[in-house]
Amino acid sequence: MTRIADRTTEPSPWSPREAELLAATLQLLQQHGYERLTVDAVAATAKASKATVYRRWPSKGELVLAAFIEGCRQVAVVPDTGTLRGDLLRLGEAILDHATRHSATIRAVMVEVSRDPALREAMQHQFLDGRKALIESVLQDAVDRGEIQAAAISEELWDLLPGYLMFRSIVPSRPLTQKTVQIFVDNVLIPSLTRPL
Amino acid sequence: MTRIADRTTEPSPWSPREAELLAATLQLLQQHGYERLTVDAVAATAKASKATVYRRWPSKGELVLAAFIEGCRQVAVVPDTGTLRGDLLRLGEAILDHATRHSATIRAVMVEVSRDPALREAMQHQFLDGRKALIESVLQDAVDRGEIQAAAISEELWDLLPGYLMFRSIVPSRPLTQKTVQIFVDNVLIPSLTRPL
Repeated sequence: MTRIADRTTEPSPWSPREAELLAATLQLLQQHGYERLTVDAVAATAKASKATVYRRWPSKGELVLAAFIEGCRQVAVVPDTGTLRGDLLRLGEAILDHATRHSATIRAVMVEVSRDPALREAMQHQFLDGRKALIESVLQDAVDRGEIQAAAISEELWDLLPGYLMFRSIVPSRPLTQKTVQIFVDNVLIPSLTRPL
Repeated sequence: MTRIADRTTEPSPWSPREAELLAATLQLLQQHGYERLTVDAVAATAKASKATVYRRWPSKGELVLAAFIEGCRQVAVVPDTGTLRGDLLRLGEAILDHATRHSATIRAVMVEVSRDPALREAMQHQFLDGRKALIESVLQDAVDRGEIQAAAISEELWDLLPGYLMFRSIVPSRPLTQKTVQIFVDNVLIPSLTRPL
């Protein structure tokens, strides 16, 4: 039963008005970058008062983290393709799509989170815990189908797929494409999960 | 013959005085973070004039990138342990050590590089090209020893080891340790490089 709950896309914790403010924040971040983002501009873009924004998110860091998490929530997919390879490819492609569209936001979040332990805590509980549960559920499905052994899962490296793709999107030395995801899944993740034990 | 040249640790491109300024920059970055770094403080710490610093590095971004690259150069190891596993562990541990001591610098470099195409170009030629050659040489040694097949190397993912460890160091949701490196090498990198082709 908890299983069904896990698999449902989480409902938004925000009102439609708040969601509009977060969408405006994401849009401005991607257009102008973090330094030039102002609460004034967010309020103006979403036709709200500055007080409305500040009441909900007292600092720029909190606003940006909330916008990032809400953006991720909207694209969170429970892959459920029926195979481990299919699930990993779909997860990887969703991360790729999000990371390439929102690289400026991801960079901003990393900087803010590194400065502020309270934001780090919020990121952990509002974001990372859920991501970890999603990836673990994909791997558990593969165990249940007999595709891999439970002992082949390295919990320490649960964020290898999103972590490397995020790294590639924020250090843009060469294009990050669907081909990258496919090579990562076929040449690295599947061989690791199906290695002789 | 080029092989021997490849394996020699590159000489520093800086004079001893310049190297002192870069060391002072790294130290201040790690103590106070990027926002609070000033050229004044770098000059004062290294007992130099501001003009001396600005003459060599006209912007804070250039100064920080140079300090980062010089710090990396000093810890660059050519592992040469005689086995692929040994080489990967040693490389991973050197990256781990550097990334955990200089996480604030790495974050600063990522932000600056993302804003400035000229810095991105400098990072590519002064840093990434050399790193790629080092990792390729470790893998080529393993091919020469018959440990792996050349076709098992995924060039697209040459930076998987440093990239994931850097990601972990800048998104500090849990400790990054030698155990992380060992699990990464044994459960992921070696199975990928020795997978059936």
